[in-house]
Amino acid sequence: MADPIRIGVLGRGTVGGAFARLLEERADAVAAATGRRPELAGVLSRSEGEFAEILAGSDVIVELIGGTDPAREYVLTALHAGKPVVTANKQLLAQHGEELFAAAREAGVALRFEAAVAGVIPIVRTIQESFGVTEIDKVFGIVNGTTNFILSEMAATGAAYEEVLARAQQLGYAEADPTEDVNGADAAAKMAILARLAFHAPVTLADVAFEGIEGIQPDDLAYAKELDLSLKLLGVAERRDGGLSVRVFPCFLYGGHPLAPVEGPFNAVMVEAPAITEVTMSGPGAGGVETASAVLGDVVSILSGDAPAAEVREELPLVADVASSFYLHLEVADRPGVLARIAQVLGENEISVKSVVQRGIGEDARLVMVVHECLESRFHAAIEEIGGLDELRSQPRFIRVIEEEFV
Amino acid sequence: MADPIRIGVLGRGTVGGAFARLLEERADAVAAATGRRPELAGVLSRSEGEFAEILAGSDVIVELIGGTDPAREYVLTALHAGKPVVTANKQLLAQHGEELFAAAREAGVALRFEAAVAGVIPIVRTIQESFGVTEIDKVFGIVNGTTNFILSEMAATGAAYEEVLARAQQLGYAEADPTEDVNGADAAAKMAILARLAFHAPVTLADVAFEGIEGIQPDDLAYAKELDLSLKLLGVAERRDGGLSVRVFPCFLYGGHPLAPVEGPFNAVMVEAPAITEVTMSGPGAGGVETASAVLGDVVSILSGDAPAAEVREELPLVADVASSFYLHLEVADRPGVLARIAQVLGENEISVKSVVQRGIGEDARLVMVVHECLESRFHAAIEEIGGLDELRSQPRFIRVIEEEFV
Repeated sequence: MADPIRIGVLGRGTVGGAFARLLEERADAVAAATGRRPELAGVLSRSEGEFAEILAGSDVIVELIGGTDPAREYVLTALHAGKPVVTANKQLLAQHGEELFAAAREAGVALRFEAAVAGVIPIVRTIQESFGVTEIDKVFGIVNGTTNFILSEMAATGAAYEEVLARAQQLGYAEADPTEDVNGADAAAKMAILARLAFHAPVTLADVAFEGIEGIQPDDLAYAKELDLSLKLLGVAERRDGGLSVRVFPCFLYGGHPLAPVEGPFNAVMVEAPAITEVTMSGPGAGGVETASAVLGDVVSILSGDAPAAEVREELPLVADVASSFYLHLEVADRPGVLARIAQVLGENEISVKSVVQRGIGEDARLVMVVHECLESRFHAAIEEIGGLDELRSQPRFIRVIEEEFV
Repeated sequence: MADPIRIGVLGRGTVGGAFARLLEERADAVAAATGRRPELAGVLSRSEGEFAEILAGSDVIVELIGGTDPAREYVLTALHAGKPVVTANKQLLAQHGEELFAAAREAGVALRFEAAVAGVIPIVRTIQESFGVTEIDKVFGIVNGTTNFILSEMAATGAAYEEVLARAQQLGYAEADPTEDVNGADAAAKMAILARLAFHAPVTLADVAFEGIEGIQPDDLAYAKELDLSLKLLGVAERRDGGLSVRVFPCFLYGGHPLAPVEGPFNAVMVEAPAITEVTMSGPGAGGVETASAVLGDVVSILSGDAPAAEVREELPLVADVASSFYLHLEVADRPGVLARIAQVLGENEISVKSVVQRGIGEDARLVMVVHECLESRFHAAIEEIGGLDELRSQPRFIRVIEEEFV
């Protein structure tokens, strides 16, 4: 058997610890599969180890620090030194991907990052390799387990957002500071990475429009049930009007949609292309062992000698105004003619109504509507107009809906 | 750019034609991704072309003939000649896999077969590469789209098996001779391939116990609905009692199971392992373009230089008697004491009842039960005894049930 392969690990957190254990546990299996036995060359933490020394003693660098600083510098230094790198760092890739991929190409070494997106689901490898020469139309899905857990719990229990968030924190599904998860920034970073892979275009975090779930009310979920809708925080990257649209937003799905049954801290990603119709992949969104397992898969790939860093081949403009279907929640005075006025505003903006549920509450009424796909700019114009009507009792609330119903 | 890569295609059927078109259409993308432009070196059909000539003029052989003869000889000859091979031929791999993999290893060339299992779902690559060093417990799922379409239609319409099969044939979801699909043999071949990959053990078609869906009655599906069960033809390969069990059988799943929503001519495969919890992948089960796309992915992998032929590393005994939960359908005389007698027989065989639905029909009654997991040998003993009771109006019918309920 060839010399052992020395693995330098940057980071000693949950994932770093799980990776070191898994590496030891599966060393024989790695040796059997690749012909080289992996050895832990050193672990860098804030208090222990020295980067330069670990780098010098390693054949492969595994970056599990998170954040962009000092992770960016470490990864660049490792690549410049001709060492392949595996990272689970989505922010680093979403913000500095071009620089890192260029460094990897220049040095002729691999930069792999399966664990950065969708936990243990092998979506990066699938897009890069299985569908590497496929003309992909759309990649979308649930890429943040924290928000999916919160939305599932809100729907199941009727509890308010704040209450469910606190429960998620207790269970370890949400961080002490959950901001990046709940405001959509984490999902946006992952979608930037997936969009780059799927479309061979230089998408970065700054190109992704994102909205979070902080404003979701329990009664949105209650009304949605009557319409057979379930709420997910979706990331969508797609070709539209000759350009590219990459967004993250809360969105209702009909019961028959393949993503509708994905509940709890799970992730699921769909890829659509003429040559494959659609493929859906789901699994746990995070977890130390699961992330470590994805990292180990990347290490094995490097030992097997495959997958150079992909070069960007396309320049696609970002499309600003896309068409969406919306759920619309209005509290109005229960007077004759109110629905007619609202319907008129929608009609004038060329927005057609798919379904309406109206319910009286004392002297007021709630109107819950789903409207068919329309340009978002038109929808926002209509909402502004509706918000100004005398009959409105509170500001309109709205959430996107994926209209397609699947068999 | 390097020399073009010459692709020799064996077979000119639906998949062969779709592959030739896709190869031309995506030639630029393949060249951009791999540095080599693919060219069709020749196509062998029954009436045209000569194998030896095509082999001599090709760098890679793509086998899309199907069946084992002459496909086996062609693939072996190509591998011995040092040419990498891509095949979509599940029967060939399930029956002669060891011989072919050995030939590939000896010649040091790749033998790839993503399209042989689960259509466009990249399950082969995922098990081989992403989870290549993961200790997998279980691989299971819906690996035959024809039977899944038939069962979905039967459940949705209440129509009889024969009627739905005829409709499937009209729609092109079933062959003129559907035997291998409906009797489970096709799924068994795919499970043999998946089991070999997942467990690094020399599983062949002969090791797989399979049952089909020909005996399913519309009222099984009707009663099952009351119990929130949906019926699938499942393939299951798992570690059990220190050995391996690989089987194909019709099976009920509870509504919350990740495979329950998979309807129509779709496939879905789940992989379970401690390090990954579970990953589910679903997509279209077949189709010429989809299969051609999977074949092209394999060609690209070969051009990228990865994935040698996996060597078998384990010898696991096959476990004959496994534990299962069952749905049991009995037509009995509607007399006092009947349920008690049946329950006694079950009790004596240490089988405990999970749920019962009883319904009178004139002087008779139908008993539909679900029993908890028990050794299949015990269940069959109980069924033989129950079948001999005076009160039975027809032979007992039974179908396996996956008991776990998912959140």
